[in-house]
Amino acid sequence: MRDSAAMAEILCLNAGSSSLKFALYAEPGTDEPSLLASGKIENIGLEPHLIARDAKGDVLAERRWTKDGTITHETLLEDLLREIEASVGDDLIAVGHRIVHGGTDYSAPARVDAPLLAALEALCPLAPLHQPHNLAAVRAVSRLRPAVLQVACFDTGFHHGQPPIATRLALPRALGEEGMRRYGFHGISYEYIARQLRSIDPDTGGGRTIAAHLGNGASLCAMAGGRSIDTTMGFTALDGLVMGTRCGALDPGAVLYLFQQRGMTAREVEHLLYSESGLLGVSGVSSDMRALLGSETPAAGEAIELFVWQIARQAGALASSLGGLDTFVFTAGIGENSPEIRARVAGRLGWLGVDLDADANLRGDAVISAPSSRVAVRVIPTDEERMIAIHTADLLREEPKA
Amino acid sequence: MRDSAAMAEILCLNAGSSSLKFALYAEPGTDEPSLLASGKIENIGLEPHLIARDAKGDVLAERRWTKDGTITHETLLEDLLREIEASVGDDLIAVGHRIVHGGTDYSAPARVDAPLLAALEALCPLAPLHQPHNLAAVRAVSRLRPAVLQVACFDTGFHHGQPPIATRLALPRALGEEGMRRYGFHGISYEYIARQLRSIDPDTGGGRTIAAHLGNGASLCAMAGGRSIDTTMGFTALDGLVMGTRCGALDPGAVLYLFQQRGMTAREVEHLLYSESGLLGVSGVSSDMRALLGSETPAAGEAIELFVWQIARQAGALASSLGGLDTFVFTAGIGENSPEIRARVAGRLGWLGVDLDADANLRGDAVISAPSSRVAVRVIPTDEERMIAIHTADLLREEPKA
Repeated sequence: MRDSAAMAEILCLNAGSSSLKFALYAEPGTDEPSLLASGKIENIGLEPHLIARDAKGDVLAERRWTKDGTITHETLLEDLLREIEASVGDDLIAVGHRIVHGGTDYSAPARVDAPLLAALEALCPLAPLHQPHNLAAVRAVSRLRPAVLQVACFDTGFHHGQPPIATRLALPRALGEEGMRRYGFHGISYEYIARQLRSIDPDTGGGRTIAAHLGNGASLCAMAGGRSIDTTMGFTALDGLVMGTRCGALDPGAVLYLFQQRGMTAREVEHLLYSESGLLGVSGVSSDMRALLGSETPAAGEAIELFVWQIARQAGALASSLGGLDTFVFTAGIGENSPEIRARVAGRLGWLGVDLDADANLRGDAVISAPSSRVAVRVIPTDEERMIAIHTADLLREEPKA
Repeated sequence: MRDSAAMAEILCLNAGSSSLKFALYAEPGTDEPSLLASGKIENIGLEPHLIARDAKGDVLAERRWTKDGTITHETLLEDLLREIEASVGDDLIAVGHRIVHGGTDYSAPARVDAPLLAALEALCPLAPLHQPHNLAAVRAVSRLRPAVLQVACFDTGFHHGQPPIATRLALPRALGEEGMRRYGFHGISYEYIARQLRSIDPDTGGGRTIAAHLGNGASLCAMAGGRSIDTTMGFTALDGLVMGTRCGALDPGAVLYLFQQRGMTAREVEHLLYSESGLLGVSGVSSDMRALLGSETPAAGEAIELFVWQIARQAGALASSLGGLDTFVFTAGIGENSPEIRARVAGRLGWLGVDLDADANLRGDAVISAPSSRVAVRVIPTDEERMIAIHTADLLREEPKA
């Protein structure tokens, strides 16, 4: 993938059900890891497609596989590891993973061993669409490269310091004690955003901040001085904002109704709420915001309106948890790339003191609020892989050499 | 119950699973109905207890029944009707009912006939714990006093004018079209509050108002110029705030988890979420706020804290829908009677411009905000029965005489 160099390498993996995102970093032993290459394999299970780019964004490699029953997540990962080692030699010393759920026990990034893997396995019911794929990648790396250090970084970790009141569900206490509580997700992304805010504004880290991670999955995080104090996702990654195919916040009575009145099975309800709802369900057209913004179907317009309305509504809830608002951050696919969505969200937050600079927003500047805006509005590209690389490098430095 | 008088009477009924609230009004033909008596039968199914008071609050009648399999809702209602007619003669000309759910088709108060009753029956799945009892009272009155006009007043009705975006769930469109949408409840109470605000402030009806109906059931309603534009209850009366025994807003993934991982049946989940959660579930002590405020158990304190936190959080969401806040109204059992809860809620809403006058709050004045408070905070006792009586009288006047 690049010219080989006598330098330790860290691979970061974010393994989903039909995609595998990766990034390769040089670990200089001091300072921050530097990006060598990144990319993803998409369409796994159908006709997988790999694309890898260097740090400047130029394409390093592209490959397509034809539909073939023998191609699995594991064979693809093996191809990827082989390709990486062909270019960097055997200098791959660590793999950092995005693990969606760390449960109540795991918040800080952790070296993967058998007990940890078993504990994370037990959390699959809390993130049934993500956790099994994350862990499958861990196990595949264990088999393919047993000597390499593996590090688990948890999407729930950043929220662990929340006040207990923000994590409680109004269910009988016994259920809380067995783990039914609000966890929050997208924590690796929010940790990265908090880090960026601290480097921009070392004194307050953005003060009372709402960060909006708006991608195919979407959530808001309320941060006070760079620490999470509330978030819109809860026990699972289904709660909160309207997402590409997930319903977001939904009356629990509506879920009951699907079982009791429509006679649906748990698997059918799960599929409905995770994969057929959200922007796709409301628009009937697409889960992709770009497609909706380009569509003239009224239902597409309604889906966008609902997405924006819910962001504004839930931003009000988080502003209440924060006791006001100083900074609003847009990040992730939609947040970084859609001036129209940013403008519409900001337009509903004028009452909180948000005043957008329309030109700065169109340009996608780092600061898109008007100078007179009481709330600073920023666009900060997130980088979960870099955050994982930093944690993995930190743990490497703590480890005795193998 | 009182000295008989040659005047038409309206009986208002609010029939629940274990209680029957009633109020008897004189209908002068002009102006507003005036209260003659009100009361309730509680503990139905165990050892029913009736208490009735006159308009000044003095006890008119009290009666206890011992446990006896022959005492049903209907026999109790018959006793009540007989008691009323013994005191007012045969001047009972109409019965107005609180009906929790009017679905998509019914918003305005309506004369009950067979087609309406059938349509309301079909809505039972949307309010399984309330609607059947409401309708049972309608049918019982039909059998016991077939000549009397019956009027249905819907708890959903006041919310019908909401912007469509506030009513949409992020589910596939087909489910929306078959009635899966946000309806909102406590509408008779909110309509009464809006009416009171208009009489206090005819120009704006309180402007951008959040009314907090805090009783055993609890919700918030955002009103702009006296019209509902958003509310915390949704498709069912389970959503939104933490309630006495109901969970309020809950990650839909948590409901799925109860089915998939704990193997619960729909009936068990329903019972858990409606009857074992909320203040009772979190405290492990009681669903009654008075008991919790008097308890020294830390879990009781946590339940109160969660109740207040969720009110503040969801008030932020509704303030966003309103684009700011001018008036905050406390009403219903807890809202009218608990200075401590009012103070704690207001304490979390300082960022919205709420500044309480501590003495006025302790006294339970009509206005409890400080003169300098940007948001006016009011305590307005709700009166759902009076609102039902007004609607029933209005329909009576439209009816041809029987």
